Amino acid sequence: MVIIALDSGKTKTNAVAIDDSLNVLCRVSDRGGGLIYSDEVIMNALMNVIVECMRVMGIRVNDIDVIAVSWADLDTEAYWIKASRIINELARRINIPRSKLVFDHDAVAAYYAVTLGEPGVAVIAGTGAIALGVNARGERARSSGWGWLIGDEGSAGWIALKALNAASRAYDGRGPWTSLVNRLKDYFKVKDLLSILDVMYAEPPEIDKLAKLAILVSEEAEGGDEVSVNILKEAGRELALNAVTVAKRLGMINESIVVGGVGSVFSSRIVNEEFRKVISNSLVKAKVKEPLIGNYSLLGPIIMSLSRINKKITNTDVEKLLKEL
Amino acid sequence: MVIIALDSGKTKTNAVAIDDSLNVLCRVSDRGGGLIYSDEVIMNALMNVIVECMRVMGIRVNDIDVIAVSWADLDTEAYWIKASRIINELARRINIPRSKLVFDHDAVAAYYAVTLGEPGVAVIAGTGAIALGVNARGERARSSGWGWLIGDEGSAGWIALKALNAASRAYDGRGPWTSLVNRLKDYFKVKDLLSILDVMYAEPPEIDKLAKLAILVSEEAEGGDEVSVNILKEAGRELALNAVTVAKRLGMINESIVVGGVGSVFSSRIVNEEFRKVISNSLVKAKVKEPLIGNYSLLGPIIMSLSRINKKITNTDVEKLLKEL
Repeated sequence: MVIIALDSGKTKTNAVAIDDSLNVLCRVSDRGGGLIYSDEVIMNALMNVIVECMRVMGIRVNDIDVIAVSWADLDTEAYWIKASRIINELARRINIPRSKLVFDHDAVAAYYAVTLGEPGVAVIAGTGAIALGVNARGERARSSGWGWLIGDEGSAGWIALKALNAASRAYDGRGPWTSLVNRLKDYFKVKDLLSILDVMYAEPPEIDKLAKLAILVSEEAEGGDEVSVNILKEAGRELALNAVTVAKRLGMINESIVVGGVGSVFSSRIVNEEFRKVISNSLVKAKVKEPLIGNYSLLGPIIMSLSRINKKITNTDVEKLLKEL
Repeated sequence: MVIIALDSGKTKTNAVAIDDSLNVLCRVSDRGGGLIYSDEVIMNALMNVIVECMRVMGIRVNDIDVIAVSWADLDTEAYWIKASRIINELARRINIPRSKLVFDHDAVAAYYAVTLGEPGVAVIAGTGAIALGVNARGERARSSGWGWLIGDEGSAGWIALKALNAASRAYDGRGPWTSLVNRLKDYFKVKDLLSILDVMYAEPPEIDKLAKLAILVSEEAEGGDEVSVNILKEAGRELALNAVTVAKRLGMINESIVVGGVGSVFSSRIVNEEFRKVISNSLVKAKVKEPLIGNYSLLGPIIMSLSRINKKITNTDVEKLLKEL
C-alpha cells in the first residue's frame, strides 16, 4: 500500500508518502498551491510533488492507493468548484482513477488529526482560526474561519491586532497601561509608538507577518502584563466558544465527543487553560485532547487516505507519525 | 485680503479663495495630494490649485495674504518632515514668503472649525476617527487616529468591520441574530454569507469602500436591529471617550470648553445621542456643539488662515461659510 498525503497552502505544498506500516517513504515540497493561485500554478505544485515522490520511491501511478489533498481556503462554493476541477484534471494528467483522489478543507484534515474520525470538534488556531466538527451521522458544521478582516477570533492574527489596539489605547490614555507599548516600539524600531503608522499603512499588511506579534503578547503575559493576559484569555474563550457552537449545531452538547485544539496559538499556556476551562464547563462529557502543535498538517490527509481505504488508525499510530513527520 | 485654503487628501485636493468679507472667490480641485504620495505628485496638486485660483481671480502671488494647507495623514514625525519640505519648496517655486504659508493635520483644521480656536476638542469620525484638543495654554493632545488596522474606534471603517464580524458570528451561531446577515448578502450579491470571503480576500481591502457599509448599519439600527443599534451606541461611546481622554490630558475636565463632532458618522442619531450623553456626564461644563457634517473640510484651513492674520471669526461667519462652501 502506498498513500500520498499533500498539504497545499499559500506559501508551500508539502507531501509525504506512507506505506502499510505507516513508514514515511518520501517527503517533498514545492511552491504554494493554495486556491488563491491560478489552476496551472496549483496543478504544477501538486504534479511536482507527486511525480517527485514516485521518482524517489521508484513506483508508478498504478502503485498508488490514494492521494489526499488538504487545502487551505476551501471555504466557499467558488473554491469548491475550482478544487474539483483541478482534482479532475490532475486525475486525467497523471492517469489515475478519479476515485483514488480525495481532497478537503485543511480544517477537515485537522479534524481527522484530532479525532481520528470519531465524532468531535477540532479547533484550529494558527494565523487564522476555525472550528470543524462531525457528528455520528457524518454531518459537518464549521464556525469562524472568516479571515483576519472579519473575524478569526482567537487566532494569532487576531491576537496581534488586539495587541496593536491595546497598545494604541494605552498610549492615548484611553485604556490601561500595557508593556506591549514598549515591546511594539522595540519590535518596529520606532522611538514613538505613533510612528508604527508609517510601517502599518505604507503597503497592504500581510497578516502572516503581523501574526508573529502574538509571540510578544505571550511573552508579556507570562511576564505579568495584565492586558496581555486578558487578550490571551479572551482568545481561549473565543476558541472554546467556536467548539461549543459547532457541538451545539451538531447536537453533540451532551455526547462523549473528542475535542482538541490544533496550531501554534495553543502553545500558550494561558490560551490552553482558558480553552479547557470553558470546554469542560459547556461540554461536560467531552474528552479534551492535548493540543496538536508543530508538524501536524500532513496527519490529516494521511488519516483521510487511510479512512478512504477503510484502514483503522490508533492513537499509537498517530504518535508514531507525529514523530516521523 | 485674499486667503487660499487647501484640503489635501488621498483622492482629492480641494481649494477655495476667500476675501475680506468671507466671500468665496474661487473653488478648484485637483487630484489627491495626500502625504502618501511622492513629493512631486503632492507639489503638482498644490501648485495646480493655487495657480488656477490666481488665474480665476486675476491676481498675482503678492496679492495673497495666507495659504493654509490641511493635510490628512500628518500623524508621524516622518510625515511632518515631508510636509515641511514640501511647503518650503512650494514657497520657493511660487515665490511667496514662507511666513505666508501654514499647514497642519486635518484634525487640527477640524478643531478650528468646531471651536473657532477656543479651548476645546473636536472629534472627527469619517472613514477614520481621531480627537484633537487644544487648551487655553495652547497645548495640544490627540487620541485615536491609528487607522483601520489598529483602531479608529467609532469611525465608519470601524463600524463596517464590526458589522462584518457581528454578521459572521450570527451566521455561525456564536452571536445573536442580526438582520445585517441579509443586508450584507444583498450588498455583496452572494447567496451564502460565507461567500463574501471570495470578495474580501481577493485583493487588499480598501477601507474607504468598506466604510460605506456603515450606512447599512445605520439603516438596520433605525429599523430596529438590536445588534446594529449596539454597534452604533458603542461607536458613540468610543468617540466620546476619545474626547474625554483628550480633555483629561489637557487638564480641561472641569473647564467650560467647546466639544463637537465632525464627519459623516455623526449623522447617525444613535451615535450622536450616545456621544452627547457620555460627554455631558464626563465633561459637565462642556458646551457640546451640533455636529459638523458635509462640506466642512475647508472651514478648518480658512479659520487657520484668519487666525494667522489675527482676524476674528464668529459663529455667524461660520454659518455663512458652511452655506457657501
